[in-house]
Amino acid sequence: MKLNPLFPSTATLGVNTDLYELTMAAAFFDAGCADQKATFELFTRRLPPNRGFLVAAGLEQALQYILGVRFTEKTLAYLRSLPNFQTVKSEFFDYLRDFRFSGDVWAMPEGTVFFANEPILQVRAPIIEAQILETFLINSLNFQTIVASKASRICLAARGKAVVDFGTRRAQSPQAGLLAARACFIGGCQGTSNVLAGFEMGIPVVGTMAHSFVQFFDDEAQAFRKYHATFPHHTILLVDTYDTLKGVEAALRIPGQINGVRLDSGDLDQLSRATRKLLDSAGRRDIRIFASGNLDEERIHALMLADAPIDAFGAGTEMVTSSDAPSSDMVYKLAEIFEGGRAIPKMKTSPGKATIPFRKQVFRKVAAEQFAGDLVAGSDEQSEGQALLIPLIKSGRLAGKLPDIRAIQRRATEQLALLPAHYKLLHTSEEYPVEFSEALLRARAETHH
Amino acid sequence: MKLNPLFPSTATLGVNTDLYELTMAAAFFDAGCADQKATFELFTRRLPPNRGFLVAAGLEQALQYILGVRFTEKTLAYLRSLPNFQTVKSEFFDYLRDFRFSGDVWAMPEGTVFFANEPILQVRAPIIEAQILETFLINSLNFQTIVASKASRICLAARGKAVVDFGTRRAQSPQAGLLAARACFIGGCQGTSNVLAGFEMGIPVVGTMAHSFVQFFDDEAQAFRKYHATFPHHTILLVDTYDTLKGVEAALRIPGQINGVRLDSGDLDQLSRATRKLLDSAGRRDIRIFASGNLDEERIHALMLADAPIDAFGAGTEMVTSSDAPSSDMVYKLAEIFEGGRAIPKMKTSPGKATIPFRKQVFRKVAAEQFAGDLVAGSDEQSEGQALLIPLIKSGRLAGKLPDIRAIQRRATEQLALLPAHYKLLHTSEEYPVEFSEALLRARAETHH
Repeated sequence: MKLNPLFPSTATLGVNTDLYELTMAAAFFDAGCADQKATFELFTRRLPPNRGFLVAAGLEQALQYILGVRFTEKTLAYLRSLPNFQTVKSEFFDYLRDFRFSGDVWAMPEGTVFFANEPILQVRAPIIEAQILETFLINSLNFQTIVASKASRICLAARGKAVVDFGTRRAQSPQAGLLAARACFIGGCQGTSNVLAGFEMGIPVVGTMAHSFVQFFDDEAQAFRKYHATFPHHTILLVDTYDTLKGVEAALRIPGQINGVRLDSGDLDQLSRATRKLLDSAGRRDIRIFASGNLDEERIHALMLADAPIDAFGAGTEMVTSSDAPSSDMVYKLAEIFEGGRAIPKMKTSPGKATIPFRKQVFRKVAAEQFAGDLVAGSDEQSEGQALLIPLIKSGRLAGKLPDIRAIQRRATEQLALLPAHYKLLHTSEEYPVEFSEALLRARAETHH
Repeated sequence: MKLNPLFPSTATLGVNTDLYELTMAAAFFDAGCADQKATFELFTRRLPPNRGFLVAAGLEQALQYILGVRFTEKTLAYLRSLPNFQTVKSEFFDYLRDFRFSGDVWAMPEGTVFFANEPILQVRAPIIEAQILETFLINSLNFQTIVASKASRICLAARGKAVVDFGTRRAQSPQAGLLAARACFIGGCQGTSNVLAGFEMGIPVVGTMAHSFVQFFDDEAQAFRKYHATFPHHTILLVDTYDTLKGVEAALRIPGQINGVRLDSGDLDQLSRATRKLLDSAGRRDIRIFASGNLDEERIHALMLADAPIDAFGAGTEMVTSSDAPSSDMVYKLAEIFEGGRAIPKMKTSPGKATIPFRKQVFRKVAAEQFAGDLVAGSDEQSEGQALLIPLIKSGRLAGKLPDIRAIQRRATEQLALLPAHYKLLHTSEEYPVEFSEALLRARAETHH
């Protein structure tokens, strides 16, 4: 049994894509277009229902991929064996063997708040190079963005109380658990249960006990004592295995430092009140109350409205799958090609899926310390406001150092602080103003396919 | 920049888990319980809304993990550095250094149809070993099961017409794209766009062109000719970049073999009819019509009801994220522990999350070539019907050869053929009969925690 299918290595990055990227590459190659440059833009066509904003995430992994994508002899041999590749000339496989990304990439830094129809990543490169990247780039940015955005909504609902990510077990693959931990941290979570995310990225890791630990021993009190003996300074006791309030009483009988109790089922509002009362009556105002169990922004909002005495929340499945909107409809579209150094506009006109040509820049106005509207203009236009797309790869090389995960989290926090409140509501129908420059609209009207 | 966070290797399998699995392990170790055996069962508490069945998937990767999980010096050093592990004795880290799974595993073969509260995987092992596996096992089985089940629903809606997986770009991580391709194939898809799934697992790969290919050239006709020149025997033309029916006309002007046209937007019912008419008028009954674009079981069902002349469907985001139910609420619960060779029943009684003790067996009755109800009994009970849980790992070693992916797909097809039609409806409120044996119900009533 080989472990590869479970943990694909960088050796298979070249074929970690949709087949049509490679069939198109072969046809472009045959047509003699391998060196012709083109620009693709990645954006989301519409925000998911109830979402007033998205938080960009997944760029670091996207850049790692762009810099690392290669075709090995084994993957080339596989491609050559496919029925449809039988008519493909061997020069194309030689081309893939030497494949290195040689183009330019611009993107919004991770943690940037953005909206529908705003490019968050742009690739300008020879058409084959730019085309082959499509599948992986959408995958990386779509997933982490939708999770970072969901985590932001959850953290906003918690109004400054700590939220931690408990979602790995129901993430959509082991790798999704790891990347979701990253995205949740960017979105404002204080930590994760995912140990690998701590090991690989330095995200704070949290967690104490499951019900099985309590069940294993003869009674709760014994389980609590045993746990406390090993972790005398880091003990959060799970009290709902049998009867929550009896569990709290058992916790109170443990001599020594108890950091908190965790409620994981039942009516969390009512139980947290009764728990707080028991703890306070025993003079244990120092013991904090943690709540978990199918928590999302709606449930946390309701608990906060009810003023439930909960000190921190653990969110899982709903957050790491962005369960109400598991995708953000991201696409990667051809915007222009180059002929003799001149940009030729490109767009599609399919109903509901039409695009606007040329490479763009997004300018964000800020007034009275609030975001006051974005202008999407041609990349050669000037406008007031901050230009959000910055160069990250130049001629196939990383341009500068990427921010660490804490800096990315800070950027997201700062951006959300600048976003007017009505776009941050749990249910919003207000659309943040995003306008297109006259020059772009004129280009769209004048472009014939 | 290191690539590890993107592609965790087997070297980090030990820490690819929730922190609490390892804190509990340390406390069990300290309590002198490292050698005490226990049984955990993995099951889903309830089927997602509208689902009448689930299709088991993800077992092969779960078993790879169980056999491969290790703790390296680097991951141990990381654990030792964590604040809460400062009070953990170094003997525990020695224990982890030598960690190998030594227990037994039973499971339903992949492709088995199953229902709420039926264990689909059981682990009997020293408590620490069994506990540590929890996070990864739930992750692997939850995700592939929910996607295989969604794919089955989509394939059932297509009533024998081909369905292929186009979802990788919106899968929740690159690895999710790969594993979803596997799960979709198990659920009945004929192929996938994911090249890595072909390379690693031999799943047939499909795909031809994107809109960008059409846009790149001066007009559709030129794009179609260029593609056809490279793939003269494998050409499916994407016709909706500008105007679908004009695209079909352009396709008809290509001399030589055209295998099909693909519609990716607009009213697929109406457009497929108009397309078929154009193709047939030109005497090209051999050109097939492929449809894609936000397709799920509801949309495909509607197209089939309308008798739209579509020959094959491409499903993407909705299928690979199981968008209406991105999780199946799977859990892994302690069912018994062993003291002096005797099984002690274990259960939890949290509201809405109560369990039934002891290791179980699921017996499925078949009458008139239809599944006729399941009995969940104690593992030592006998009953009529087929026993669905089979031994797969014995004393830490794989017991026999695992089926290949085509055999798993066949099993799912056969199982679904035996499932009565009313559980396969798109919207079902009928619950397949799952009963618990009297002995188990008695054990639950008699078990005090």
